[in-house]
Amino acid sequence: MRYSRIPDETIRRLPIYLRGLVFISEQGQKKVSSKALAELLGVNSWQIRKDFSHFGEFGTPGVGYKIDVLTEQIKKILKLDDVCQAALVGVGNLGSAVLAYPGFGMYSVRIAAAFDSHPKKVGKTINGIKIEDISNLKSLAKRKIEIAIIAVPQRVAQEMTDKLVQTGVKGILNFSPCYISTPESVKVITIDIAIDLARLPYYMPTG
Amino acid sequence: MRYSRIPDETIRRLPIYLRGLVFISEQGQKKVSSKALAELLGVNSWQIRKDFSHFGEFGTPGVGYKIDVLTEQIKKILKLDDVCQAALVGVGNLGSAVLAYPGFGMYSVRIAAAFDSHPKKVGKTINGIKIEDISNLKSLAKRKIEIAIIAVPQRVAQEMTDKLVQTGVKGILNFSPCYISTPESVKVITIDIAIDLARLPYYMPTG
Repeated sequence: MRYSRIPDETIRRLPIYLRGLVFISEQGQKKVSSKALAELLGVNSWQIRKDFSHFGEFGTPGVGYKIDVLTEQIKKILKLDDVCQAALVGVGNLGSAVLAYPGFGMYSVRIAAAFDSHPKKVGKTINGIKIEDISNLKSLAKRKIEIAIIAVPQRVAQEMTDKLVQTGVKGILNFSPCYISTPESVKVITIDIAIDLARLPYYMPTG
Repeated sequence: MRYSRIPDETIRRLPIYLRGLVFISEQGQKKVSSKALAELLGVNSWQIRKDFSHFGEFGTPGVGYKIDVLTEQIKKILKLDDVCQAALVGVGNLGSAVLAYPGFGMYSVRIAAAFDSHPKKVGKTINGIKIEDISNLKSLAKRKIEIAIIAVPQRVAQEMTDKLVQTGVKGILNFSPCYISTPESVKVITIDIAIDLARLPYYMPTG
């Protein structure tokens, strides 16, 4: 089922809510108010209520939302109810950090393969994943891996993207500091690790 | 001047627009339509027009926005018209990637200091920045560095935050995979490098 009327901006916030809900649940709580969730995440509580209402979740006044129901609901909407397998391309500093990052499991994503072109890296194991030579990229189709994470230098980002598209990858998370182009059937989300820093001075007290 | 009525969601998008404008400007263009900018960034053009109208920028129909005027305007709103100095705390894989990342300069942020506790790292130079021992953190006040980027393991993230708050830091970009708490006068933006991946399956074609 695709909840097609949910705005993209709500979809963008759902993983943030999911992370907050997992955190609160780990503290032993079963229910949470939009106010408490808003305070944890630094957002507005009306925004949370509005976002949740898009998929028919309404908290009970004075009681709040049931965390387990809400978590399941969000995972279903985001199509994270099954574990997705992802391949990492480029195991430099950023790629190694991605490979070691504990946060992907929370979103039901498992990095199942990693590729690099550097002979010194190929064959090494990081976080249980053995780094393969980039020439092995074409095996992704057979392995049914449809998500790729690109963390290669800018000059080879488009070339790697084209190769990934050929293997049948359907979604790319791009950490390379440039735009990449794909056919319309392949969704790209580009991450700029500097971009959130750009909002910081706005919120800082002056003087 | 503080444009206090600009919604937070607009502020969040301004750095994304800024990046797009810089990219288009580098292609030699002087003007851009909201439609062309929207296509590059994968957002809605009405959203762009609405966001820009918050600070009084209206493109000329059929001509678009003047890139230089708009860039300056956005930088001014985000308080990025002067270069900000930032300190990096934690030079592991992610910290090293941050230090080497070419994208911070675009947002007028310069990483001016880096700290780590590991003796093997202290004294090394990455991207022209000599890594200092963490005990030197208290020198930040004298050096007038008010922005910190935290990329330390979860278990020491709060401790480092407390130390940074003591030195007078006013804004923290947190890459550690956990929530950190600060006095209200210190703005924190937490980055989860996995969170954008969580939106990807939603947009991928099924079957």
